[in-house]
Amino acid sequence: MQNRIITVSRQFGSGGRTVGRQTAERLGIPCYDQKLIEEIARESGFDKEYIDDKAEETPGGGSWIVNALTSQAEFMMQNMLWEVQKKVLLGLAEQGPCVIVGRCADYVLKDVADCLTVFVHAPLAVRAERIVRLYGEREDSPEQRLKDKDKRRAAYYRFHTNQDWGAADNYHIALDSGALGIDKCVEIIADLYKTKQN
Amino acid sequence: MQNRIITVSRQFGSGGRTVGRQTAERLGIPCYDQKLIEEIARESGFDKEYIDDKAEETPGGGSWIVNALTSQAEFMMQNMLWEVQKKVLLGLAEQGPCVIVGRCADYVLKDVADCLTVFVHAPLAVRAERIVRLYGEREDSPEQRLKDKDKRRAAYYRFHTNQDWGAADNYHIALDSGALGIDKCVEIIADLYKTKQN
Repeated sequence: MQNRIITVSRQFGSGGRTVGRQTAERLGIPCYDQKLIEEIARESGFDKEYIDDKAEETPGGGSWIVNALTSQAEFMMQNMLWEVQKKVLLGLAEQGPCVIVGRCADYVLKDVADCLTVFVHAPLAVRAERIVRLYGEREDSPEQRLKDKDKRRAAYYRFHTNQDWGAADNYHIALDSGALGIDKCVEIIADLYKTKQN
Repeated sequence: MQNRIITVSRQFGSGGRTVGRQTAERLGIPCYDQKLIEEIARESGFDKEYIDDKAEETPGGGSWIVNALTSQAEFMMQNMLWEVQKKVLLGLAEQGPCVIVGRCADYVLKDVADCLTVFVHAPLAVRAERIVRLYGEREDSPEQRLKDKDKRRAAYYRFHTNQDWGAADNYHIALDSGALGIDKCVEIIADLYKTKQN
C-alpha cells in the first residue's frame, strides 16, 4: 500500500511553503520543508544554506566570467545533490503520509507514492510585496529577483524532469494564492486529500 | 460594478465543457458554450460547425500543399472571427454573471469583468478514452488527434494572447479532471465562486 503524499511546487514568493505547512497542520501529518533541507544536508555534507538557496535552481546569475569558472563545479555539485535529494525523498515516501515542499518531489515520487500534486503561484506584484515584507529590500528590485528565481527554477526542473515547470498539466491542482488567498488554498488541498482517502 | 464570470479553458477531451455546464447549473447562471457558438455564427455569418471545430485553433493539419494554399484565406477568416468573438464575449460580460467555455474568454475579459479563470486538463489516456466514447473512432489514433488538437489550440492561444496556453499562472485554478473527477471539479469551482461573492 503506497503512502499518500502531497507535493507542493511553488513560485518563489507565492506563499506555497506556508500553504504546505498549514495543510500539513490541518491534516495532522508532517511537512518536509526545513526538515527536508536538514536531512539532505546531513546526507550530503553540504551547507543547509546552500541547499536552501541554490539546490532548486540552475547555476548562474553572476557575471559571465564568474558563471564560466563556477559552472562546471556547480554542475557536479548539483548532480550529486540531486541524487542525495532523490534518496531522501524516496526514504520519506516510505515512512508515511506527509507534505513535501519543493525539490521536484512530484516528479521523483510519481511512481512510488500516491501523490496529490499541487502547484502554487501568484501574480508578480503580490509576490514582490511578499518577498520584500519577508526578506527585506535588496539591491535589485523584487520583480527582478522574482524573474531571476523563476527562470533558474524552471531551468532546474526542465533539466531534471524534462517537463515544463508550472505547466498546469503536470499537477492535479494549481492555485493562485494571490487571488484565492492562502487559507482557501489550504482548505481546497486538505479537502481533496481527505476526499481521496475516504 | 463588474459582473462575475467564470471562464473555463480546457484541453480537448478533458471534460472541461461538462465541468463548465454543470458548474453553471449548480450556480443557476447561464453557460455560454453552444449558445456562444450560435451567437458568433449569427454575427459573423460563418457556419456553426466551422466555428465549433476550427475557431479555437490555428490553421493547418492537412498536407503542406493544402496548408500553403489555404493558410492565407484561413488566416484572414481567423482574424475576422477573432474580432467577432471578442465583440460577442464583451457583450455577454455586460449582461450578467455566467460561465464561458473556451474562446480565450479569460484573456478577452480580463479587464472588463471580475473573472474566476479556470483551466481543466486530464492525462492523455483519460482524454483518449473519453473522445472515443463521445465522438467514436477515427482513422488516426485518439492520442494523435489529441496531440494535434493541443498543438493547434496552444498556437491559437499564443498568437492571440501572447501567453502560454495551459501555463498554470494564467489561471486562478487549474484542475486535473481525470485525477479529481468531474464532480469534484464542479464542487471546487462553484464553492470558489460563492466564497468570493459573499
